Amino acid sequence: MKSHLSKLGQRTVEPPISWLMHAALSQPDLISLAAGFTDNPSLPIAETRALLNEILRSPKTGQPALQYGITAGETNLRQLTARHLQKLDDAGATSKSHSWERVMITGGSQQLLYMTLEALCDEGDIILVEDPTYFVFLSILQSRGIRARGVRLERNGLNLAHLECVLQSLKRSGELCRVKMLYLVSYFQNPTGATTSFRKKRGILKLLKKFERAAGHPIYLLEDAAYRELRFKGPDIKSALMVRGAAERVIYTGTYSKPYAPGARLGFGLLPEPLFTSVQRIKGNHDFGTANLLQQLLAGALATGLYDKHVAKIERRYGQKARVMKQALAEHFPANVEIWESGGGLYFWARLPKNVSSSVKSKVFQTALKNDVLYVPGEICYADDPARAKPDNEMRISFGSASEENIRKGIARLGAVLRKFL
Amino acid sequence: MKSHLSKLGQRTVEPPISWLMHAALSQPDLISLAAGFTDNPSLPIAETRALLNEILRSPKTGQPALQYGITAGETNLRQLTARHLQKLDDAGATSKSHSWERVMITGGSQQLLYMTLEALCDEGDIILVEDPTYFVFLSILQSRGIRARGVRLERNGLNLAHLECVLQSLKRSGELCRVKMLYLVSYFQNPTGATTSFRKKRGILKLLKKFERAAGHPIYLLEDAAYRELRFKGPDIKSALMVRGAAERVIYTGTYSKPYAPGARLGFGLLPEPLFTSVQRIKGNHDFGTANLLQQLLAGALATGLYDKHVAKIERRYGQKARVMKQALAEHFPANVEIWESGGGLYFWARLPKNVSSSVKSKVFQTALKNDVLYVPGEICYADDPARAKPDNEMRISFGSASEENIRKGIARLGAVLRKFL
Repeated sequence: MKSHLSKLGQRTVEPPISWLMHAALSQPDLISLAAGFTDNPSLPIAETRALLNEILRSPKTGQPALQYGITAGETNLRQLTARHLQKLDDAGATSKSHSWERVMITGGSQQLLYMTLEALCDEGDIILVEDPTYFVFLSILQSRGIRARGVRLERNGLNLAHLECVLQSLKRSGELCRVKMLYLVSYFQNPTGATTSFRKKRGILKLLKKFERAAGHPIYLLEDAAYRELRFKGPDIKSALMVRGAAERVIYTGTYSKPYAPGARLGFGLLPEPLFTSVQRIKGNHDFGTANLLQQLLAGALATGLYDKHVAKIERRYGQKARVMKQALAEHFPANVEIWESGGGLYFWARLPKNVSSSVKSKVFQTALKNDVLYVPGEICYADDPARAKPDNEMRISFGSASEENIRKGIARLGAVLRKFL
Repeated sequence: MKSHLSKLGQRTVEPPISWLMHAALSQPDLISLAAGFTDNPSLPIAETRALLNEILRSPKTGQPALQYGITAGETNLRQLTARHLQKLDDAGATSKSHSWERVMITGGSQQLLYMTLEALCDEGDIILVEDPTYFVFLSILQSRGIRARGVRLERNGLNLAHLECVLQSLKRSGELCRVKMLYLVSYFQNPTGATTSFRKKRGILKLLKKFERAAGHPIYLLEDAAYRELRFKGPDIKSALMVRGAAERVIYTGTYSKPYAPGARLGFGLLPEPLFTSVQRIKGNHDFGTANLLQQLLAGALATGLYDKHVAKIERRYGQKARVMKQALAEHFPANVEIWESGGGLYFWARLPKNVSSSVKSKVFQTALKNDVLYVPGEICYADDPARAKPDNEMRISFGSASEENIRKGIARLGAVLRKFL
């Protein structure tokens, strides 16, 4: 009998990261600098316990926490989320693009990315992405038959001249009508750690606007701010919600998973109409709304100030881990490896000389695995884009979940492997 | 500018229930016998508080509860779920169709329904459904461009002769190759309260098998057992997992939301290969796996026996509410209204004489709303099926969330309205 799965079912391949995880499980001494997991010892266990105790102390607060709620999320948490973003952006309480009615609460920001693509894109449509970008986002595009076009990413963010080039070339080839959105991981990007400046965000929106007439429809900017609050160096940068006209064109997604707790998985998004309504209906079909108990928990954390305290604590923690990694890299990595150091997030990015491959099948990767250390090959973070070959000489190295000792050891092991091949 | 939403985005319409909810919110004295919410006073608040305290007492159990997990769900909960079903079905621990490796944990069983349709169905494919059936399932089909064909439902479950008829007719019209699945809400069905016998489940699988050769691919049975554990009368019925060959053809979905707590939204499914693998990958793209904190909570409830105790308690509670409703119906409803009484779940089903409409625009519905009582018009539970007109003389009446007093009052109000028009 022939395959009876849907086209989507057939296109949804095993995620590239999953066999890395399997490898990690089967080697007990392996140090993983691959996973994007967060730091275990600083998870807010006592805080969560206290908050849940408070919520479940009485039927008055306990019943709504355990009952069904509203598809878009609890009003209280939506309002607290809007206020939190207003504060981060130093926006007025009247900022239209920060209004709480535009906030949707989801089971992690990943769910919002998924549903936004469902609402916006048909098979064959085109999404512009940073080159390289978040590889799970690429998996979603692949599974839905959506095409990706890469825009060059530099240490200080997206290359605007190249963005214009890509848009021009799509216009020439008659494909601009398929371009729906640019996806930007704007803070301490996954995988490179790069941050895009506010000036550049404004430039991106201006360029997208310029090409809208030829496209025949809006071209959105999806700003994925997943790592924004894991910042340990430098000032915060304003989000694209602060650009004039953002309320009509910017989709902003954020998460409480990484700054608070992945196990209480919550994300959120702010969406312009008609996208908000469409995504809300789609969420009704997915799950009618995210678990209220988790929403009440985060609302409690935000309202009491526990959330802010916790974020300050983990910022120090990741800052310390990043310093340890930086020092170890300086000590153990060959000098001709280019390191992109980040002021936040969970990742450093390393570029080997162009003729040295770091891909899954490379000698570097296989030898590293044999020596019990794992990284994410940069190659899997590049979209299938006919306009260029995929670079295969890079690596994403995470300081998120490994202990300081394991960061030192892991980088020493990896450095030894690199010295062998460079 | 033309609409820029995807085909899915454009097809995903406002759920029929949502304006009912709006109506409910704007009339403070309205008694809703429409919502499928569960009973508020019996939510396990103290139990949940105790379990969460235990989980978050130490880093050893607290850290995994707050960290990322595995896409298919926590092994512990998957195993407890398999064991729970083995017990319900009186199956041996070696039953292949009940094995824990086939269990996937999701954010409510709704998410599993959604992802299964994603994995299995392209636009234009056909799903067989009970006539009437769960209306949110129909919304998903509609949004994904999947066609539905209704199979007559009787008080004792699906009409097998009509199922054969429908399959024959699809074979004749050359459309059998598009039929992927039959969707069956097997216990205390939403909306009718009807339960399908084990003998009928076996008959369904036999018929589907018989037509597979002509279809050219497997035709699955999706057994949605959402209401199975809300049983207050009669013995439990074995699931389709007990039919020979079930491990290859039966998708079984269940939920912890309704029997335990909707606010700790968890569901599960058991799936045959290659569907399990496909749905697991799709879930990776949706959210990487459901919140661990909720999974640990339910694992604790199952392992300590608190879950079983709670289920016994709410079975008594719903049994009492159903008796109150039955008595009120006997007292207030005209004798020519046919009542389907259920031995479990949350719903009774009422059939008015054929010439009396109960649809949203009908005098009955509008007068009921004016008199502060709400029900679900049966019409919205029927698929768009060219083979028959939609009956519009039925109503779903829920005893789930209303208090006993409000059940009495609500039925009295509704009875008075009906007496006016019958």
